Amino acid sequence: MITKEQIADAYKQLQDEICIGLEQADGQGKFQEELWERDGGGGGRTRIMQNGSILEKAGVNFSAVYGQLPDAVKKTFAVEQNDFFATGVSIVIHPNHPWIPIIHMNIRYFEMSDEIRWFGGGIDLTPHYVIPEDAKFFHQSLQNVCDHFNANFYSKFKTWADDYFYIKHRHETRGIGGIFYDRLNPETAGIGWEEIFEFSKSLGRSFLPIYSSLIQNNRNRDYSEEQKLWQFQRRSRYAEFNLVYDAGTKFGLETNGRIESILMSLPPQANWVYDFKATPNSEEEKTLQFLKKGISWI
Amino acid sequence: MITKEQIADAYKQLQDEICIGLEQADGQGKFQEELWERDGGGGGRTRIMQNGSILEKAGVNFSAVYGQLPDAVKKTFAVEQNDFFATGVSIVIHPNHPWIPIIHMNIRYFEMSDEIRWFGGGIDLTPHYVIPEDAKFFHQSLQNVCDHFNANFYSKFKTWADDYFYIKHRHETRGIGGIFYDRLNPETAGIGWEEIFEFSKSLGRSFLPIYSSLIQNNRNRDYSEEQKLWQFQRRSRYAEFNLVYDAGTKFGLETNGRIESILMSLPPQANWVYDFKATPNSEEEKTLQFLKKGISWI
Repeated sequence: MITKEQIADAYKQLQDEICIGLEQADGQGKFQEELWERDGGGGGRTRIMQNGSILEKAGVNFSAVYGQLPDAVKKTFAVEQNDFFATGVSIVIHPNHPWIPIIHMNIRYFEMSDEIRWFGGGIDLTPHYVIPEDAKFFHQSLQNVCDHFNANFYSKFKTWADDYFYIKHRHETRGIGGIFYDRLNPETAGIGWEEIFEFSKSLGRSFLPIYSSLIQNNRNRDYSEEQKLWQFQRRSRYAEFNLVYDAGTKFGLETNGRIESILMSLPPQANWVYDFKATPNSEEEKTLQFLKKGISWI
Repeated sequence: MITKEQIADAYKQLQDEICIGLEQADGQGKFQEELWERDGGGGGRTRIMQNGSILEKAGVNFSAVYGQLPDAVKKTFAVEQNDFFATGVSIVIHPNHPWIPIIHMNIRYFEMSDEIRWFGGGIDLTPHYVIPEDAKFFHQSLQNVCDHFNANFYSKFKTWADDYFYIKHRHETRGIGGIFYDRLNPETAGIGWEEIFEFSKSLGRSFLPIYSSLIQNNRNRDYSEEQKLWQFQRRSRYAEFNLVYDAGTKFGLETNGRIESILMSLPPQANWVYDFKATPNSEEEKTLQFLKKGISWI
C-alpha cells in the first residue's frame, strides 16, 4: 500500500532531478529556492530560474499541504470531509528563444480519506511557432508513456488537454496540447494504485528528456526582432489563459495561496497589440491554424 | 424626458471631443477607427491609438447595443425581462512615460424598461509612480464634478472605487482610485433623471482637462531604464486586475463581445518579475505604500 509520504518523497526527488537537468540543459542559469510554510499545514519548495541562457523564467515547484479544506473547495469537490492532503510538482518554463516552446507540467495527488483520493496531472506544450516535427515528437513521447500503462490513456487524456487548454474568448487552444487527466483512481484508470503512481512518476521523468530535446533542436536557430515580438504576443495569450481559465490558478487565488508561487507561471514579458492580423502564409499564420482542438499529431 | 437616443448621441459626441483633444495633447498619434456591428443588435465605434508620442496604447470606445439579454446576465441583474439597451463610452490609456499615469474612464447607461434603468461609470487613475500633488489634483477635480450634483456623491463614489479597484490576491489597490458608481437612478441618487444625465456628461467632459494636465505636468520629466521596467511591472498588475476581477471584462468575455474592443484595456507591454521586492525608501516602495484603500487625497 503506497502512503502519502511515499508519494510526496517521490515528487520531491523528481523536483531535484528536474532542476539539476534543467540547469545542465541551460548551461548558465541557476535555480533559486524559496522554502515556505502554509498557515494551517504543510508548505513547499519554490524553485525559480530567471535570465538563464535559454530559460528566461522557469518555475519548478514542489508542495505538500494538508489541513482543513475551505468550504468553497468542499463544494467544488462535492465532499463532506474536512481533512485533506495534497502534494504535487508544477513546472512552467518561458524560454527566451521564440523557436523553443513554453512548457507546462503538473503531477499531483489529493487525498481526503481511503475512499476519496486521486492522482491528476499532465504535460502540455505552447510553441510560439508550431514546428510539426517537434509537435509529433512531443505527442509521441507522451503516448509512449501512456501506452505502457493503459492503451486508452493517450487518446482520452489528449482530448482532455485539448478541451482544458482552450482560450474560449480567442477561439484558439493555448498551444498544441499534450495530455491532461484528473481524479485518476483504480476505478477510472482501470489499473491499480501502484500502477497509477508509477504512471505519475513515469510522466514526471519523461519531462526532462522531452524538453531537453526541444531545446537542443532549436537553440541554434536564428530569429528576427519581429519573431521576438510575436513571442511576446503569444505569451500574452498564455497570461490570458492562466488568469481567466486555469483551475489551479483560480484555486490558488481563492484560497489565498502563496501568490508568487502561483503566479510564477506568468511570462517575464508579454505584449498586447491591438487587433493583430497575421500576414497570409506567414509562419505566424501557420501557427494560428494549428491552434485548434482535435489535431492528430501522431 | 430624456430618451436613450439622446444619451447615445451625447456619448458619441463626447467620444469625438475626447479623441480630438487626446490627439492634440499627444501631438503626433492618430486614432484608428473600427466600426463594428453586434449580432443581435447595435454596434460600436472602437478608436485606438498606438505608439503616439505619449499615448503608447489608448482606446476610446463608444457602443450602443440592444437585443435579448443572455440568461446568465438576467440572473446577475435579477430581472425577468429580455429586452435591453446599453450605451457607453470606455477609455483606457497606457502612456509610454512612467511618470504619466494610466487612466480609465467609463460612462454608461442601461435600460430594460421604464422601471429598470440606470447610469453607471467613473474615472480612476493608476500611476506607475504616485505623485501626491497629482493625486490630490485628480481627486479634487472629481470632487468638483460630484459636488455640483450631490454633496454625498464624492465620498460615496470614492469609497466605491477603492473597493472595486482592489487586487485581492496582491492586497493592493490597482491605483489611487477615483470615483465609481452604478445603478444610479433618482431613488439612489437623490436627483432627477435629467440631472443624473448631466452628471454623466459632466464627468465625461472632465476627462480631457484632467488627463491633459497630468500629461503636461510630467511629460518632460526624465526617467531611467529601471523606472521603465517598474512601469512594465505595474502594468502587469493592471492586466491581473482586468483579467481576474473586472466586471466589464468578465461580462464581455462571457457574452462573446468583440474581443479586441474588450481587451484593448490590456497594456502594450507587461512584465512579471518573480518576487520583486522594492528597495526600502525608494520611489517604488513609496508608491506601493499608497496602494491602499481609504486614503484621503484632498
